[in-house]
Amino acid sequence: MAYVAFDAFMKESKAFVEEQLVRYANTLQCPNVLREAMAYSLAAGGKRLRPLLLFATLQAFGKDRDLGIGTACALEMIHTYSLIHDDLPCMDDDDLRRGKPTNHKVFGEAMAVLAGDGLLTYAFQVVTEQEHTDVTPEIKLRIALELAKAAGPEGMVGGQVADMEAEGKQLTLHELEYIHKHKTGRLLEFAVLAGALLSGATTEQQEKLLTFAKYVGLAFQIRDDILDVEGTEEEIGKPVGSDMTNEKSTYTTLFTVEEAKQILEETIAKAKEAISSLQLQDEYLLAICDLIAKRNH
Amino acid sequence: MAYVAFDAFMKESKAFVEEQLVRYANTLQCPNVLREAMAYSLAAGGKRLRPLLLFATLQAFGKDRDLGIGTACALEMIHTYSLIHDDLPCMDDDDLRRGKPTNHKVFGEAMAVLAGDGLLTYAFQVVTEQEHTDVTPEIKLRIALELAKAAGPEGMVGGQVADMEAEGKQLTLHELEYIHKHKTGRLLEFAVLAGALLSGATTEQQEKLLTFAKYVGLAFQIRDDILDVEGTEEEIGKPVGSDMTNEKSTYTTLFTVEEAKQILEETIAKAKEAISSLQLQDEYLLAICDLIAKRNH
Repeated sequence: MAYVAFDAFMKESKAFVEEQLVRYANTLQCPNVLREAMAYSLAAGGKRLRPLLLFATLQAFGKDRDLGIGTACALEMIHTYSLIHDDLPCMDDDDLRRGKPTNHKVFGEAMAVLAGDGLLTYAFQVVTEQEHTDVTPEIKLRIALELAKAAGPEGMVGGQVADMEAEGKQLTLHELEYIHKHKTGRLLEFAVLAGALLSGATTEQQEKLLTFAKYVGLAFQIRDDILDVEGTEEEIGKPVGSDMTNEKSTYTTLFTVEEAKQILEETIAKAKEAISSLQLQDEYLLAICDLIAKRNH
Repeated sequence: MAYVAFDAFMKESKAFVEEQLVRYANTLQCPNVLREAMAYSLAAGGKRLRPLLLFATLQAFGKDRDLGIGTACALEMIHTYSLIHDDLPCMDDDDLRRGKPTNHKVFGEAMAVLAGDGLLTYAFQVVTEQEHTDVTPEIKLRIALELAKAAGPEGMVGGQVADMEAEGKQLTLHELEYIHKHKTGRLLEFAVLAGALLSGATTEQQEKLLTFAKYVGLAFQIRDDILDVEGTEEEIGKPVGSDMTNEKSTYTTLFTVEEAKQILEETIAKAKEAISSLQLQDEYLLAICDLIAKRNH
């Protein structure tokens, strides 16, 4: 019963954020080709995990998705820009992303750089001008600040650089965790924190939810590393074992696959434990944990 | 007398913003190479015209430079990121910027993309967390929003795309103005608007100062086009006549040089006229007009 409801919640959340992303792209007064390049990658699908985490956090406080729509779209814009820049020839040089040609393959490298820059900047326009009457200037400001910290040099961009620097090197667990925490973890944490801020959470609630989000981010990455070894190419959208081929340190090179699975299970348990005392309507948050532990793409 | 004072004001403003940029870069908790790449381009000099416009606007209201330091540094971060990305091989492919190797020549293309992304994102961190006690959350929020609009798809990034699309085409004056207004104009306007917002300017004052800034931006560009024809390579830092070689439409291809000079003079007069009724301490703002009209680099 709870799972059926969560499935519906996931589908509705995905549809809602995708519809709103189209609306945000369409209202832009800018050269057509730029709007098209931005919209192309925004529409390229994906799990929309960050908006889902945000909406599930709002739900935990009994709040409606509408309250978080600006922040959810900004999150997807930032995530999308990072993928566009990541795929560039000078970075990972990928021709395909989720089975579709990458942005620079369709629009050219220069436009891909600018579409990424445009999405990154537009995200801050969207969070600072969100119009929901329950979002005070103080909350908008805090959300913009936290988004900048999570996405910038001390967050995602820093993680990207660390990941790039690490290629071909044998990492310690500490170094590996730095990369994951920053490259993917910070935006996932922001999604939960933003949901808490928008819901008027107390400082204690914010802290426990952040701890929850840290474990969720870690679990996400461990599962990713396991999938790289155990998934099928069709499921994970890249050759199986590509991390090993690229001489990347992962949870399955630092540990055995069985150990990694054990750590994943413990991490999920810690995530759930972190919010257990809060007495929120946390069904969806808990369901996301299970989703991450079992995902196969 | 006024000119000596303005010279000192310029030098002090430049030194102040450069010192603060170093401070902002140094406090970043991020991989060293990223901090170095960002700091390298932040320290690469330039006129610091945007901070100067901001400080001169504050001065017009009798306010201190300190009030605008976060916004001034954010402006330079955005300007700097746009130059780094602009110089990339897939964009203008420039090896030198102000006589020094461009960012990607020193740090590689991937790092240059990420250093640009980092600066752009950090700018929003800096404006949203500025600590001056006279800056209210409402003002910070408005500044972050206006910065995003000025720098994003509806502003600078849109202008970059339009400029790229225009290469090799004969433009109308209207199309040429669109490019200039967005590519360089919007950030110059933001500098003045931010100064007005930080000073608590009335709506009427904001509007007249924005009109002033629009003419200043236009004058800046017309002077640029004249310099491309009349300057020396040493003065302008690129080959004389490079716009013509690149088949770019400019004020000196749409008009004769003499006509362009006449339009420049009229534009400067309109800029000064726009703020003449405000009775501000506008000496520095007027001096910037003259500086732009006469600049040779």
